Amino acid sequence: MNFKLVFRITGRTLLVEACCMLLPLLVSLIYRESPLPFLFTIAILLAVGGILSALPASNHFFPREGFFAVGLIWVLISAFGALPFWFSGYFPSYVDCLFEAASGFTTTGASILPVVENLPRGILFWRSFTHWLGGMGVLILTIALMPSLGSRTLHLMKAESPGPVVSKLVPKTSQSSKILYGIYCGLTAIQILCLRLTGMAWYDCIVNAFAVAGTGGFSVRNTSIGAYGNPAAEVVITIFMLLFSINFTLYFLILCGKIRQALHSDEFRFFLGVVAVSILLITGNLWFTQGYFTSLGDTVRAAAFQVSSIISTTGFSSVDFNLWPEFSRFLMVILMFIGACAGSTGGALKCSRVLVLFKCIRREINQVIHPRSVNVVKLDGKVVPEDTLRSILLFFAAYMLIVLTAGLVVALDNFSFGTTFTAVVSCIGNVGPGLETVGPMGNYSAFSALSKLVLTLCMIIGRLELLPILVLFSKSAWSRS
Amino acid sequence: MNFKLVFRITGRTLLVEACCMLLPLLVSLIYRESPLPFLFTIAILLAVGGILSALPASNHFFPREGFFAVGLIWVLISAFGALPFWFSGYFPSYVDCLFEAASGFTTTGASILPVVENLPRGILFWRSFTHWLGGMGVLILTIALMPSLGSRTLHLMKAESPGPVVSKLVPKTSQSSKILYGIYCGLTAIQILCLRLTGMAWYDCIVNAFAVAGTGGFSVRNTSIGAYGNPAAEVVITIFMLLFSINFTLYFLILCGKIRQALHSDEFRFFLGVVAVSILLITGNLWFTQGYFTSLGDTVRAAAFQVSSIISTTGFSSVDFNLWPEFSRFLMVILMFIGACAGSTGGALKCSRVLVLFKCIRREINQVIHPRSVNVVKLDGKVVPEDTLRSILLFFAAYMLIVLTAGLVVALDNFSFGTTFTAVVSCIGNVGPGLETVGPMGNYSAFSALSKLVLTLCMIIGRLELLPILVLFSKSAWSRS
Repeated sequence: MNFKLVFRITGRTLLVEACCMLLPLLVSLIYRESPLPFLFTIAILLAVGGILSALPASNHFFPREGFFAVGLIWVLISAFGALPFWFSGYFPSYVDCLFEAASGFTTTGASILPVVENLPRGILFWRSFTHWLGGMGVLILTIALMPSLGSRTLHLMKAESPGPVVSKLVPKTSQSSKILYGIYCGLTAIQILCLRLTGMAWYDCIVNAFAVAGTGGFSVRNTSIGAYGNPAAEVVITIFMLLFSINFTLYFLILCGKIRQALHSDEFRFFLGVVAVSILLITGNLWFTQGYFTSLGDTVRAAAFQVSSIISTTGFSSVDFNLWPEFSRFLMVILMFIGACAGSTGGALKCSRVLVLFKCIRREINQVIHPRSVNVVKLDGKVVPEDTLRSILLFFAAYMLIVLTAGLVVALDNFSFGTTFTAVVSCIGNVGPGLETVGPMGNYSAFSALSKLVLTLCMIIGRLELLPILVLFSKSAWSRS
Repeated sequence: MNFKLVFRITGRTLLVEACCMLLPLLVSLIYRESPLPFLFTIAILLAVGGILSALPASNHFFPREGFFAVGLIWVLISAFGALPFWFSGYFPSYVDCLFEAASGFTTTGASILPVVENLPRGILFWRSFTHWLGGMGVLILTIALMPSLGSRTLHLMKAESPGPVVSKLVPKTSQSSKILYGIYCGLTAIQILCLRLTGMAWYDCIVNAFAVAGTGGFSVRNTSIGAYGNPAAEVVITIFMLLFSINFTLYFLILCGKIRQALHSDEFRFFLGVVAVSILLITGNLWFTQGYFTSLGDTVRAAAFQVSSIISTTGFSSVDFNLWPEFSRFLMVILMFIGACAGSTGGALKCSRVLVLFKCIRREINQVIHPRSVNVVKLDGKVVPEDTLRSILLFFAAYMLIVLTAGLVVALDNFSFGTTFTAVVSCIGNVGPGLETVGPMGNYSAFSALSKLVLTLCMIIGRLELLPILVLFSKSAWSRS
């Protein structure tokens, strides 16, 4: 392992984090709040990042360095990103700050704060801004800003990007990451304007747009988006949660005029199908159960908002779905597993993986019935290599294994099975809310420090899709050879 | 699909089922109960079985016919096996009878009866006897009794046997199945004698031994094994639950004098490790939590009994583990997923599959760190082919998919998330009890007919390890080509 090079890349990312913190610093100054939490943190980041990035290092760079660096960087940006919360004095302990920062960067949106409306606006801005930074990837931002990392950057991009297959949009990685960030910024800006048109205050427009763009879900109101009582804003947010769940390559294709090719994506169609069926089922379930909604329009809007929020792994809520009938609640848990499209800012298993799984099962059945026919699994008309299939299936199994193992540790806190299980599923899927104690109107404050650390790890494992963190914690990665 | 041959094999199995019903008929006569439920059913089985097995059929027999036949046969033996319950008049509906019979044959042991002690002894005998028949496999029994099926029988055996790899003990399949049934009968007989030595009544010894041998879990007492207040019997049952969770090939090796080879099985060691660690963790959890046990001996005995009961997928209980702290409850749910060794009478994912999964994850990490080294997954010193690995990983993913899909339907009954989820996990793993409403002292009577049918299907899907039932329900299997 080329540790020196890993440290140098880590150092550069910390310097980028320091730059990013200038924005919440500015917000603090605008609202006449204490800038000290951010000034202290920026000083620390500059010192640590400066030393690390000045390290001399050879250019030996392989996938293992990529995975290791990404794992390390995400742990460190969360650890340093927690410092403004810690310095602000509004958080009970550093573990809570770490949980909140990791929840921000991983775009989970799970919070340990029962009440948020009394926090300084600068701190809340940073909290939402971490979603925006983490959504597209901190390393991709570093690559976009510092192209000098050169040819090695594909390994980093591969290790950080969500989804089984990473496609470079253009031959040059730094160019690709600039295009992705361009689309990201553009969509965020359009969303801010749309929200403003619904009558929302500028500050709320910006922080909510950050949370939606990163599919994060931190809200600046105690009862999330429901607090605004603004149906138009709910519709805008529903649409943008879905837009940010789609593979960004599709937007690139549309920008290049290849609209037909973009709309023919198997994953995109599967995603739309799951969303439509889920909204239909939940609307039916709520409409035919006494005591939920009196108007069909309200039912559809609530169903659409909550379905989009969970499948995009945002985690906003306009109503408390924890109070819904069990059928709708169970469907929400299934959506927590499925998640958004690969190559989007959303988390969880990803639609393409679930779709490939269905195709693998169908192939297995066909192989029994027609053993002599050639059976391949195709996605978008192309054959998926057997190696990729095995990786995808392994991903499912490992994901479940981590859910059950982490759940066992969290179970030590003696919450109900529903709370324990959905807390882990929600954190590893980067969703945010679960059921019962961790429902949309609940929070994670009641968990022990151990559980919070385990859930923090789950969030980072889920965001980086297992391998970087598994490599980081494997014994053989730490050997010098 | 060669339907005629499938029907002929089905017919023969129904004839074997008719023969098996002579035993509970005899018990009814001994206890002077009405023999009519069994006489009616035997008459129906002889008629249907006789017609089907007289069908002329060609000898074209491929894996698809094997899977299809096994799927069909297990649905039918449950449907006909439910008739004595239905004729007895003690069950509220035919769906309840079907649930109970499928729960018996699949060795699940989930019951819709809140009270069992008022039922006729003949009916209870049949209920427990279905465990014993289903444990080793109804088709293997048919093969052992009717070797005339000839060379096609390996396909049947493969489709019915649990575990990723089926090894024939000796070159001839019918000979192998006779040896397996010999070991099975021998172990059952030894268990009956051991239970008798603890002072249990003969009738109870026999029915409990059937339930343990098949790793079923139907009890003839309302509060399961705890009702006897017999610690010695609990210890005997704990030991035999573990013995019946081990791959029967190991007993064959021991009988052949290859004891060292038998003890070197990776799966066996993994199984023992999981059992030991689980007992230790639960003992610790209960001992250090106020209000459970006053003596350490009682704690260990209760932990060992419950762990053995769940990992062997028997489902007996000596205490109500639903009242334990959440850590122990969550560990029980994990054990419901893991299950027994392949080639035993136990169900769920199987230890060998879980072990292979761990090895696959380790390999994936190693491939990142040392990309040039040759990485293979080995079990018992032999390389596991990539095809088998893919099947095992697919099995995990499909298993989870079925759990979530079935859970969604069961959720319509509006029970808690814990009840809904663990009911499905317990049924597909052929365990029996789950948590909350379906805990060890609860039962499945409160579910709707739809949920009972879905859970019945889960039990058969789990017992036959997915493929036969998936093939049975696939459209292309029903085409004539």
